[in-house]
Amino acid sequence: MRATTRRRVRRLSLDGTDRSGPDTLAGEQPMEIALSGEPWVVTMRTPGHDFDLVLGLLHAEGVIVDAAEVATMSYRGGVDPDGSRSFNHLDARLAPGVVRPASTERAVYTSSSCGACGTASMEAVTKLSRFDVATDPAEVALAEVLGWPDRLRARQEMFERTGGVHAAALFRLDDEGGDPLCVREDVGRHNAVDKIIGWALREGLLPLRGTALQLSGRISFELVQKAHLAGIPVVSAVSAPSSLAVETADEAGLTLIGFNRGRGCNVYTHDHRVHA
Amino acid sequence: MRATTRRRVRRLSLDGTDRSGPDTLAGEQPMEIALSGEPWVVTMRTPGHDFDLVLGLLHAEGVIVDAAEVATMSYRGGVDPDGSRSFNHLDARLAPGVVRPASTERAVYTSSSCGACGTASMEAVTKLSRFDVATDPAEVALAEVLGWPDRLRARQEMFERTGGVHAAALFRLDDEGGDPLCVREDVGRHNAVDKIIGWALREGLLPLRGTALQLSGRISFELVQKAHLAGIPVVSAVSAPSSLAVETADEAGLTLIGFNRGRGCNVYTHDHRVHA
Repeated sequence: MRATTRRRVRRLSLDGTDRSGPDTLAGEQPMEIALSGEPWVVTMRTPGHDFDLVLGLLHAEGVIVDAAEVATMSYRGGVDPDGSRSFNHLDARLAPGVVRPASTERAVYTSSSCGACGTASMEAVTKLSRFDVATDPAEVALAEVLGWPDRLRARQEMFERTGGVHAAALFRLDDEGGDPLCVREDVGRHNAVDKIIGWALREGLLPLRGTALQLSGRISFELVQKAHLAGIPVVSAVSAPSSLAVETADEAGLTLIGFNRGRGCNVYTHDHRVHA
Repeated sequence: MRATTRRRVRRLSLDGTDRSGPDTLAGEQPMEIALSGEPWVVTMRTPGHDFDLVLGLLHAEGVIVDAAEVATMSYRGGVDPDGSRSFNHLDARLAPGVVRPASTERAVYTSSSCGACGTASMEAVTKLSRFDVATDPAEVALAEVLGWPDRLRARQEMFERTGGVHAAALFRLDDEGGDPLCVREDVGRHNAVDKIIGWALREGLLPLRGTALQLSGRISFELVQKAHLAGIPVVSAVSAPSSLAVETADEAGLTLIGFNRGRGCNVYTHDHRVHA
């Protein structure tokens, strides 16, 4: 079980090229997560940083607000079809007193693109954040914002080899030109964000005041909600936000930036944080 | 409730540009789907072709194999925050005798990127197809394959205006250079495929022998599985497949093509269907 796998591929092109050779693919594997022994969720993900993914998912689903609320995490038994030990079953033991809310009391399956599955009704889709990002006084220079995509790309090791994974990076706004605090790649863009927030939970960094989340792709509602739940005041992406992503950012007081492609960008909400 | 919405956006660039103006965003709204009055699933999606989306989802989840198994579909009551009638609640009445399998008997929430949610265990993630695509004798010329991305792009009306939606198109392999049978756009790539397969179900076209599905983005496991369930023998995409997408296509006998960018492509599985 690896983050990438190798396969033979045949490359064809109009100019007559026809050659076969090895290709590197982004790993996609199901992971079955149990909470204190009870099945909770099956999610597709790229193997790696699995514990952070589980912490981030539990946080996004409102089950925990602190890493200490998970007493232990361990891979459970199981073997892959090739006979090797499987790392696709994980059990998280919740600390005494931590109960999962009713809305997540069912076992669900989430695709690699989906990090918000597990709630039962439309009302439960919208989650309230403990943190008020609207009052975060963070500001950032436009030149700094426009530098994030390249600085994320430079750290996308898996993308470099596969051309096929999403990525997310967390930057500190008071560290202009600095390295990202954390970079994660995954076939699912929600997973990349869950892995970053799970890492921050373990490091005791929430709320993530004065930070920005840079994304490699588009911005859906859930990504904005995950950022808001973690107290991140700025979300930026290479591509477009959806209508609900913009509405959610607007209401949360979060600065949402799209089409950030190095030379220019669109600021959709709370543009007072971006200065020239 | 529209497929796109308009918002004010501030455009900033390194050369000093700073102007505000209207921008078009891809619509993303939750849709709560009930089966015969009982809550089934909440999915994020771009409004439009909602009935086809429901048919496609029911098919992908193994609830129906034929459009006639849904007796009626109707929007239920409800009003949007602005007081207008809501089209975000839909009830599908299953025909007498149609039962939903146990694995989908829970109400789940799926993000706009996720069209396969609703199953309870890892075993249930993999669904068996009624159709044998391995024996589909369809073949296609490389030049035809390389023409699909442009022919899809030419029909991506929403992408043209928003820059932020996924798209899928269904092509007939025996109609070289012809128009796609069906094109759908959605903030969720799984939704675009569900909407196409829902359309095909309504038209009585399954199994979709001799067709190809062209996708605007990456290829995850679920997209290959949805194609297999509908009997589609060829799946092509502009970007990379995941490891599990390739494994699934290999086992199904389905031809999987990635990085199809007009001048060349990678054929990952069952390359006998593509000839120069």
